[in-house]
Amino acid sequence: MNAADGMNYAPQGKPQPVVKPGEFVFSATHIDHGHIYGMCNGLTEAGGTLRYVYDPDPVKVANFLKAYPQAIPAASLEQVLEDPETQMVCSSNVTSLRGPLGVRVMQSGKDYFSDKAPFTTLEQLQSARETAAQTGRKYMVYYSERLHVEGAILAGYMIDQGEIGRVISVTGFGPHRLGAAGRPRWFFEREKYGGILCDIGSHQIEQYLHFAGEEDATVQFSRIGNYAHPEYPELEDFGDCSITGRNGTTNYFRVDWFNPDGLRTWGDGRTFILGTEGFIEIRKYINLASDTLDGNHVFLVNGKGEKYINATGVTGYPFFGQLILDCLNRTENAMTQAHAFKAAELCLQAEAQAVRVSGPES
Amino acid sequence: MNAADGMNYAPQGKPQPVVKPGEFVFSATHIDHGHIYGMCNGLTEAGGTLRYVYDPDPVKVANFLKAYPQAIPAASLEQVLEDPETQMVCSSNVTSLRGPLGVRVMQSGKDYFSDKAPFTTLEQLQSARETAAQTGRKYMVYYSERLHVEGAILAGYMIDQGEIGRVISVTGFGPHRLGAAGRPRWFFEREKYGGILCDIGSHQIEQYLHFAGEEDATVQFSRIGNYAHPEYPELEDFGDCSITGRNGTTNYFRVDWFNPDGLRTWGDGRTFILGTEGFIEIRKYINLASDTLDGNHVFLVNGKGEKYINATGVTGYPFFGQLILDCLNRTENAMTQAHAFKAAELCLQAEAQAVRVSGPES
Repeated sequence: MNAADGMNYAPQGKPQPVVKPGEFVFSATHIDHGHIYGMCNGLTEAGGTLRYVYDPDPVKVANFLKAYPQAIPAASLEQVLEDPETQMVCSSNVTSLRGPLGVRVMQSGKDYFSDKAPFTTLEQLQSARETAAQTGRKYMVYYSERLHVEGAILAGYMIDQGEIGRVISVTGFGPHRLGAAGRPRWFFEREKYGGILCDIGSHQIEQYLHFAGEEDATVQFSRIGNYAHPEYPELEDFGDCSITGRNGTTNYFRVDWFNPDGLRTWGDGRTFILGTEGFIEIRKYINLASDTLDGNHVFLVNGKGEKYINATGVTGYPFFGQLILDCLNRTENAMTQAHAFKAAELCLQAEAQAVRVSGPES
Repeated sequence: MNAADGMNYAPQGKPQPVVKPGEFVFSATHIDHGHIYGMCNGLTEAGGTLRYVYDPDPVKVANFLKAYPQAIPAASLEQVLEDPETQMVCSSNVTSLRGPLGVRVMQSGKDYFSDKAPFTTLEQLQSARETAAQTGRKYMVYYSERLHVEGAILAGYMIDQGEIGRVISVTGFGPHRLGAAGRPRWFFEREKYGGILCDIGSHQIEQYLHFAGEEDATVQFSRIGNYAHPEYPELEDFGDCSITGRNGTTNYFRVDWFNPDGLRTWGDGRTFILGTEGFIEIRKYINLASDTLDGNHVFLVNGKGEKYINATGVTGYPFFGQLILDCLNRTENAMTQAHAFKAAELCLQAEAQAVRVSGPES
């Protein structure tokens, strides 16, 4: 883990290939966020074969090739889309361009794997939903704060095993380090990044739906604010949201760009899952003021007592292998299309109906 | 601390008398909740002189006398109210009776110190507000989850010293062990206990107003539910609430009666305070899965780094001495009357406007 900047959070796991070289081929295009490295790591470790890389900016391509020297620089997006070997296209495009790119990818007959948030408008979502239905292709999303965090994977297993009974409520904190100097201009343009509840809020909503086992939900109340960054008037440095699931579970999450400089990593991300028979806390990236700097701290409390497990190296990242097999077998074990889109829909609704709690003038 | 049951949470601190024996005399009436012991401990340690105890139930009086053999059993409430030496009357009456009792106490010329929640209806609050204004007497409230928790006191000092910059948001978790067998019948009757957001939610709102420095606020969204206790149809076993302060700060809290049997204490109460320059986490009663069973774990993270302090024995409980001096000097250093009433008002509003998320039938 890069301790300085969540933007470059790109976990590396133990290779657990589910296919032989060449059996699943993917390419990467439009490298506008460092998450592309996490996406490519995950797919490569699961046995995927990386073929093309494309970005209009040759510097980004050169940097990408340092991490993945096996990739072939493509001359254009068309070259990738027309490549008969490429089965999936991955991208960490500018957020507002992810939807339109995904539609083109699916129309070219390939599956698409987008960085989160996958959309900035409900219109983009609708277009992607229609195209996915028409083409039968996948529009999958890299919700990294669950899929690429072993503590979160372990928590999911614990829930599945009934360790905390029936899930009642999920609470999440997603603080992030701003590191404004290292961010591209589009990061501060609301039309392009979509607002804080859309951007880093999307992780939170995806986790809630997953841990609570909800397929549909309603955004009940949300807030956004810019408390302390008047120099970036379109930045939202704080947001929170309350959601109620169709089955009656509840969710609250808070996201912000106030991670203090003195924290040894990019954010003290937490998830608290309350069940009828116990609860789980995940301290995802750090255990405050502890001697070691690592993540994946899982605390399970139920009728049997209090249990601590460090999940690092325990679960691996099963999503990526499942995703490859889903693409090959046209199954939905890694994540259903409905789930990926529902999380996106709710984060867009949360952003759209948010009450502004503090203006940049304050 | 009693590890089994928050109902009997009655911290004992180092005696720090602010007055000499007999300079501040108080009496206790209507012992319907174990909080009376925390209230009397705090006042006694601060130098208060306990005079009468009254309850219609002689068993409760006898138990009280085991803890405070110096108290004199009174034959009636009137004897206490007419006692010229008693300056303050403390009570942990049934919640719905706290307001009417307080009005009588203030009308008798004495200050009143009530267990939380101080009211179950806005009418009771209005009556108390009017009587306090008319008589000039105090209606103070034992919001124990801040006033009697050294970790919370220390966090307040850190905020005052600017350690986390300007406070933006306060998030609180108030899980409690139900221990239904040990609860009186009125605890499960909504008209008497007032609902979960009124009852244990009142602690959370008081902390928010204090830590955020807010004098007024608006309840924006709240939920209540009974997820798993159909045998107590009027119990609310879950509640949460979002509040926005007049100065733009935000609050969210969650309360529940789902503390797992395997937790070594009655609830993993937490408070998270986010500021522009850092944050504080208080693990009030336990640090999960740690070797020791103690509370008051305070984590401060700001530009200088991550700092852990165990506040046990560090701050004491300054509220009680300040309260005694406030009564003697007619000042408001312990807590303003407006603050005590505002926290009460907001918890009543949170309860009144709550959306029900799961009925007892589920």
